[in-house]
Amino acid sequence: MKNTPFTIGIVQMSMTADAAHNMETATKWLREAKKKGVQVACLPELFLSPYFCQSENHDFFALAEAIPGPSTDYLGTLAKELDMVIVASLFERRTAGMYHNTTAVIDADGTYLGKYRKMHIPDDPRYYEKFYFTPGDLGFKNFDTKYGRIGVLICWDQWFPEAARLTAMQGASVIFYPTAIGWHPAEKAQYGEEQWNKWQTVQRGHAVANNVFVASPNRIGLEKDADGGGLEFFGHSFICDTSGRYIEQADEKFEGVMTAVVDPAAVEKQRQYWPYFRDRRIEHYGKLTEHPSEE
Amino acid sequence: MKNTPFTIGIVQMSMTADAAHNMETATKWLREAKKKGVQVACLPELFLSPYFCQSENHDFFALAEAIPGPSTDYLGTLAKELDMVIVASLFERRTAGMYHNTTAVIDADGTYLGKYRKMHIPDDPRYYEKFYFTPGDLGFKNFDTKYGRIGVLICWDQWFPEAARLTAMQGASVIFYPTAIGWHPAEKAQYGEEQWNKWQTVQRGHAVANNVFVASPNRIGLEKDADGGGLEFFGHSFICDTSGRYIEQADEKFEGVMTAVVDPAAVEKQRQYWPYFRDRRIEHYGKLTEHPSEE
Repeated sequence: MKNTPFTIGIVQMSMTADAAHNMETATKWLREAKKKGVQVACLPELFLSPYFCQSENHDFFALAEAIPGPSTDYLGTLAKELDMVIVASLFERRTAGMYHNTTAVIDADGTYLGKYRKMHIPDDPRYYEKFYFTPGDLGFKNFDTKYGRIGVLICWDQWFPEAARLTAMQGASVIFYPTAIGWHPAEKAQYGEEQWNKWQTVQRGHAVANNVFVASPNRIGLEKDADGGGLEFFGHSFICDTSGRYIEQADEKFEGVMTAVVDPAAVEKQRQYWPYFRDRRIEHYGKLTEHPSEE
Repeated sequence: MKNTPFTIGIVQMSMTADAAHNMETATKWLREAKKKGVQVACLPELFLSPYFCQSENHDFFALAEAIPGPSTDYLGTLAKELDMVIVASLFERRTAGMYHNTTAVIDADGTYLGKYRKMHIPDDPRYYEKFYFTPGDLGFKNFDTKYGRIGVLICWDQWFPEAARLTAMQGASVIFYPTAIGWHPAEKAQYGEEQWNKWQTVQRGHAVANNVFVASPNRIGLEKDADGGGLEFFGHSFICDTSGRYIEQADEKFEGVMTAVVDPAAVEKQRQYWPYFRDRRIEHYGKLTEHPSEE
C-alpha cells in the first residue's frame, strides 16, 4: 500500500441536459484540479446528466452505459494525460433490464481500476432511485491507486455508519462520496440549513469514528423536471480531516475545485491515538446483520 | 412502549474525593432538575468519586459496590420522592476480582430497572480503564421507564457507531452517554478545542444516522492525581436532536442541569422521513463482526 502524502480534489458543479457539455465542464475542472496539484479527483454523482431520478421515466434508461465503456475510455485518456486518478460516478447498464448507480475508479496511467456499485438506494419524493438502480452486489471496496488507497461510497450510503466502517476497515485514508442532494424548493426556507448541516454532520461523524478523511462533492443548481417541479442541489461540498474539521467547505453557489492533502502516515498515527479498531466488541455486533425486531 | 413526550435532563458537575459529598451534590442537581420539569435525569460517569482511572492503584477497588446496592437504594428513594427516572453511572463490584463500569437505571417509582455494563473499555494515558473494568457482557440495551424507552451507553462507547446503532435499533428515542473526558493540561492549548469538538461531532453523527436524541453529561474541573499530574475534564455536555442540532450545550465551567423534550412520535416521524432502517444492507454487513484483515 502506498503510504506517502497525496493531494485530493473534489469538483462542485452544475449539470445540463447535454451529456457532452457536462463532460466538457468536468474536463475543464479536472484540468483546473491538475493546476492545483490534485492527484486524485472526484466528480459529483451522475455528473453526465441532470438528476433524472426526479421522475420515473423509462426513457432515461437510454442514458446508461457499460462500465468500463465509452465514458471510462474518455476519462482514461484524460487521466493519463493529467497523470491523475479520476473517480467518476456513472449510470451503469449491466444488462438489459438491470442497471446500477456506479462509480468507476481510473488510475493515473489511464487504467480502469474497478467500480463500486451504490449499496444503499434511496427512494423518496423526487429521489426515485429504486426505480432505476438495483442495489450494489460488489460489497464495500477500496482501490489501490498510483497515489494511495482510497474508499468510494455514493450519496445515500453516507447516512449509513456501516458503510463507512466497512470501507475504512480496509485501510483507506480517505472516503469519497460523490453526491446529488438538494432541497425541495418549497422546503428550503424552513428546512434548508438543517438539511445540509445534518448531511455534513453525519459524514463528519464517520470521519471521526473511523479516523478517515471524508471528501464529498455535491452538485449545485436548480434542475427543473418535466412535471414543473424540481430540486435545487445544495452544494456545500466539503473535505474534512480525521477529527471532522473542515479543510475546505463550499456554499451552494461555488463552482470549482476544492483540495486537501491526505497523509496516510498521519492517519495511521491518529488510529493509534484514537484506537477504535483495538476495542471493537465484534462478538456483540451480530445483530448489525439483522433488521430491528418487531416491537 | 410509552409514546408520549417526556423531558430529559443531564447534570454537568465536578467531583471531590468524598463520595458522600458527591452524592449530596448530585442530589442537589436532581432536585433542581425536578424543578425544571425533568422526568428522566442522567448524571456523569462515575459521579461518586474522582476519576480514579488516572492511575493503576489496587486501593481503588474498594470504591466498587454491588448493583443493585447501597447507591441504587439511596437513589431509588430519591427517584420515588421526585417521581423521576435516574440514570446513574457507578463502579460495580461483580465479585471478588471482577469489576465493571456500569450504569444503573432506576424508575420513577424507585424500582431498580436494570443495568448496562460499558462494552468498550478505553486504555490511554490517564484513562487506564482496562486495569479496572472487565468489558460488559450484557450487550446493548434499552430500558422501558415510566416516561419512555431510553438507551444507555457510557463514554468510550460514544466513539463506536456500532453501539449507537444497536441501541437505537431497539427503539429508544434518546441515548444517554454518561461521560468522563478531559484534557491533558499540557495538550489543552494545542488540542483542546479539537478534542471536545470531535467528541461532540461523533455523537451528533450518531443522532443523525439513527434519528435519535443524544444526551451526554460530562464532568468538569481539574482532578489532580497523587503522581502530581492530572486531567481537566472538559464539560461541553450537550443534548442534540435527531438532526444533530444542539438543544443545549455547556462550556467547560457550567455546573447544573440541561434539559430537552423528547417526543417519541416525532422521532418515529423522522425515521419515516429519513428511512435508514428501511435500506440497511444486512446481508453485506457480516464483516462488521470481524476485525480488519491484515494488510
